[in-house]
Amino acid sequence: MNELADKIKVIAFDVFGTVVDWHGSVAREVTAMNLDVHADEFALAWRAGYQPAMKEVMDRGEWIILDELHRRILDRVLADFGQTALGEAERKHLNRVWHRLKPWPDTVEGLTRLKSRYIISSLSNGNIGLLTEMAKNAGLPWDCILSAETFRKYKPHPDTYLGVARTFDLEPQQVMLAAAHHGDLEHARNCGLQTAYIERPFEYGRNNPKPVAPWDANTLHNTSIVHLAEQLGC
Amino acid sequence: MNELADKIKVIAFDVFGTVVDWHGSVAREVTAMNLDVHADEFALAWRAGYQPAMKEVMDRGEWIILDELHRRILDRVLADFGQTALGEAERKHLNRVWHRLKPWPDTVEGLTRLKSRYIISSLSNGNIGLLTEMAKNAGLPWDCILSAETFRKYKPHPDTYLGVARTFDLEPQQVMLAAAHHGDLEHARNCGLQTAYIERPFEYGRNNPKPVAPWDANTLHNTSIVHLAEQLGC
Repeated sequence: MNELADKIKVIAFDVFGTVVDWHGSVAREVTAMNLDVHADEFALAWRAGYQPAMKEVMDRGEWIILDELHRRILDRVLADFGQTALGEAERKHLNRVWHRLKPWPDTVEGLTRLKSRYIISSLSNGNIGLLTEMAKNAGLPWDCILSAETFRKYKPHPDTYLGVARTFDLEPQQVMLAAAHHGDLEHARNCGLQTAYIERPFEYGRNNPKPVAPWDANTLHNTSIVHLAEQLGC
Repeated sequence: MNELADKIKVIAFDVFGTVVDWHGSVAREVTAMNLDVHADEFALAWRAGYQPAMKEVMDRGEWIILDELHRRILDRVLADFGQTALGEAERKHLNRVWHRLKPWPDTVEGLTRLKSRYIISSLSNGNIGLLTEMAKNAGLPWDCILSAETFRKYKPHPDTYLGVARTFDLEPQQVMLAAAHHGDLEHARNCGLQTAYIERPFEYGRNNPKPVAPWDANTLHNTSIVHLAEQLGC
């Protein structure tokens, strides 16, 4: 483990689901707004629109920031849930819930410990403004905010994973991606990065646990970000 | 002043000279390396190569990061000072002195106080890796690292100043640029940003004081970053 801990210089984190609890945060705000919807399902539907919307933009060779994508999906989901009466100011406010997502209980301690030894960065499809405001709200101690917006490509485009290594003039194997999604990690691994899986069984809510079994291909399997810090001797 | 303090949401900082003391830091490292040069003059010559080298790249419509520009200039300045014998490892190390620049004595306190109320960001021609490592070495508590590299344009291109406003979905007048250079501030002002001049009389060394007289056009004139924090009620 010491050899690995010495080799790595930068740990980049997936954010939605890995660092922050998007499902719980969105559901709570939807409930607080007294929208006439099942908050749990509304949060899932909003998030479910994200991958296809992103793919559509990528397939067209376009680039738009996630705040805009979130808004397009929100308007559609509101219609699907019969909430067309919601006003512009409320939509704008609700769309920024992604700037106010809450961290998992171990996140801030884990990042702080890792920061003592490594450069810690986001690597998220969230835009730079979103990630900066989220970090400020949630106390996430990033050394640097890297985003799909930095590289003008969404994950899983190789330019994002390799972009972290290039930003710091490192070899890909000196960079580790930490994520709660095996697919994201697989793409990073194909680019030569180290990979750390973080278990987030309740990413989709308490009523909707997801499997968190290890994949042998990952460099490290971790029950939390604090566990990752422990495994790397921080 | 309260109206101004309320209007501003983001303060972006020029870095070299404004936040960190490039001259003193470079001269100290050159001295420590026992190079057979006048450290003060060597630092000035290296920095003097920066504007023309950047202009040349911009005129050609190219984009390269500052680390590379610094290296090209360094090789030329070493030759000019008769230091052609310096090896590759030493050149590489010396070139990264820009990642190790020390803050002015008021910098960390001033930024920390401003961070309690505002989003604080770099806006520097330094590349993202350089600025991140500098922040980690020097304890600069940025919320976000914005760089010429983020926008693929060097200052004073309008895309850099307006890019800060766009990043945070703000009007230009909700963003303030803080800098020790009236020219940088003038370009920001022409884009609609608020401007804060920071006095750094010894940017070019104790032996080479520069004038720091106020320009009326600036929104605020400050003797230090702590003074800026005081003027904004932080």
